[in-house]
Amino acid sequence: MDAELGSWRDGAARSAITDFVRRVTTEGGDDYVDPVERVAVLDNDGTLWTEKPMQIEIGFILQRLAAMAEETPDLREQQPWKAASTDDYDWLGGAITKHYRGDDSDLKVLMGGFVRAFAGMSAEDYLAASGEYLRRGSHPTLGRGFRQCAYPPMVELLRYLEAHGFTVYIASGGDRDFIRAISDEVYGIPAERVIGSSNALAYQEDDGGASVVYRARPDVFDDGPVKAVRIWSRVGRRPILAAGNANGDIPMLEFTGGPSLPALRLVVLHDDEDREFAYTDGADELLDRAERRGWTVISVRDDWTTVFR
Amino acid sequence: MDAELGSWRDGAARSAITDFVRRVTTEGGDDYVDPVERVAVLDNDGTLWTEKPMQIEIGFILQRLAAMAEETPDLREQQPWKAASTDDYDWLGGAITKHYRGDDSDLKVLMGGFVRAFAGMSAEDYLAASGEYLRRGSHPTLGRGFRQCAYPPMVELLRYLEAHGFTVYIASGGDRDFIRAISDEVYGIPAERVIGSSNALAYQEDDGGASVVYRARPDVFDDGPVKAVRIWSRVGRRPILAAGNANGDIPMLEFTGGPSLPALRLVVLHDDEDREFAYTDGADELLDRAERRGWTVISVRDDWTTVFR
Repeated sequence: MDAELGSWRDGAARSAITDFVRRVTTEGGDDYVDPVERVAVLDNDGTLWTEKPMQIEIGFILQRLAAMAEETPDLREQQPWKAASTDDYDWLGGAITKHYRGDDSDLKVLMGGFVRAFAGMSAEDYLAASGEYLRRGSHPTLGRGFRQCAYPPMVELLRYLEAHGFTVYIASGGDRDFIRAISDEVYGIPAERVIGSSNALAYQEDDGGASVVYRARPDVFDDGPVKAVRIWSRVGRRPILAAGNANGDIPMLEFTGGPSLPALRLVVLHDDEDREFAYTDGADELLDRAERRGWTVISVRDDWTTVFR
Repeated sequence: MDAELGSWRDGAARSAITDFVRRVTTEGGDDYVDPVERVAVLDNDGTLWTEKPMQIEIGFILQRLAAMAEETPDLREQQPWKAASTDDYDWLGGAITKHYRGDDSDLKVLMGGFVRAFAGMSAEDYLAASGEYLRRGSHPTLGRGFRQCAYPPMVELLRYLEAHGFTVYIASGGDRDFIRAISDEVYGIPAERVIGSSNALAYQEDDGGASVVYRARPDVFDDGPVKAVRIWSRVGRRPILAAGNANGDIPMLEFTGGPSLPALRLVVLHDDEDREFAYTDGADELLDRAERRGWTVISVRDDWTTVFR
């Protein structure tokens, strides 16, 4: 176990983490926090693993949409099946970029395809399909398997927190069951500690038992204010440590700590074009607030000796 | 810890439990289940603690409704404030009885009062108020504190399962945060392993942070098919052991096990008028199915040496 933050350079971010952990674990100290209250929540895309040029989950959806268009030619003329069939990354990337600019129109079309793509599939079959995609596939530009797209410094942080009595959750805008497929293997986080978005599920009786199957409609989009609400729903406590990298993480970070508990808020800044990607789209308000509120910014370029294993 | 099921009489129910636990924990055996998959889910009202003459949570709501009617006289002419102010247990009990007969009309009126009763309250204040009610109050007919309304044989079962590598969840139709207020103290189950109903929550920024507060509308009613869906959402696995006592537990029990895992389904039968209550209303379909499918029925009268501590 890398309980020593070995991929972190000495610097303000590393010190902020180790100082905070020391404070909340020093018995008798002013900021001591009982282990049961040591809850940490971390975003996934762009915080625990890479999210560029597009979120890894999108590739999984596109593969399924392309297979549907293959079977049903009429779909090839409609978005998002059209873009999926023709590898139209301009349209696809545009849907995400527009979302970051506050225009969800194409993202909704994309998500409309997503809910139809998996409708009728049992939650267990979806989990198996996600796992297969993630174990077999590789990143389109980084030339590495998806499971190797996680950031070792952040995985070390998870282990470091656990070694100091924290319970660690993923709180992602991405699909909950997609992440669950590999969360234990990649992050050491079991399925029950993955919070994320989900399509609606239905209960269905069958011969000698029952299943839950995906419906053709969304349920929760776990981003922005919903992240804070869902953390409470799932955990029943405020976190004392949170990490994110996008504007949609602001409410989760604000909710952290609260009137009676200390807090550490971490913001991952993607500023390393050589080793990963450099971008701030979708993170402008977050970086602004981090500066104003004194939240801890982690520079990929300066704070990490290793970005990928 | 009562890891020995000391309040259980020798008999079919006790043997079914110990045999099942032996099978799933015997390495190399046909029914061996990896510890990570040993998930148990138990209903609360009527399964872990008493639910008659009315669910304990209802008293908490009524107290708050009566206080509202005190402040706002107009409310005294409307249900459910009227019944709450005048201790009209016929109306209140009727709402529940009608629900068990498939008529939710009065229950909806009652729940409509419930969502208004706590609107605007932060989740943490609600948790504190629930805890105070449960620690101070006592059962209307049994003459014991609410925390002493839990069944020792079932608490022993929780410890017994944990001692054999199970992770135990409450899956209740009752309010999630109400149960969380005392789940650790009474059952040794932490907040994050309580699944239940909830009103909708909203994120709200305030000076120097943020809170989640109750809205005046319901979110999840965790009963019937929803129980199975919510167990998947929260846990990401099927349970292998489930316990319930009402028709609304059938889907949870059917979902238990599944194609690749063994299952033990427990049904608590309230047949002890001397020590607790004897009733089968709201449990007719369940008892029918239990007989048809060979599920394990626990007789309060015959299987437990102690009903309350």
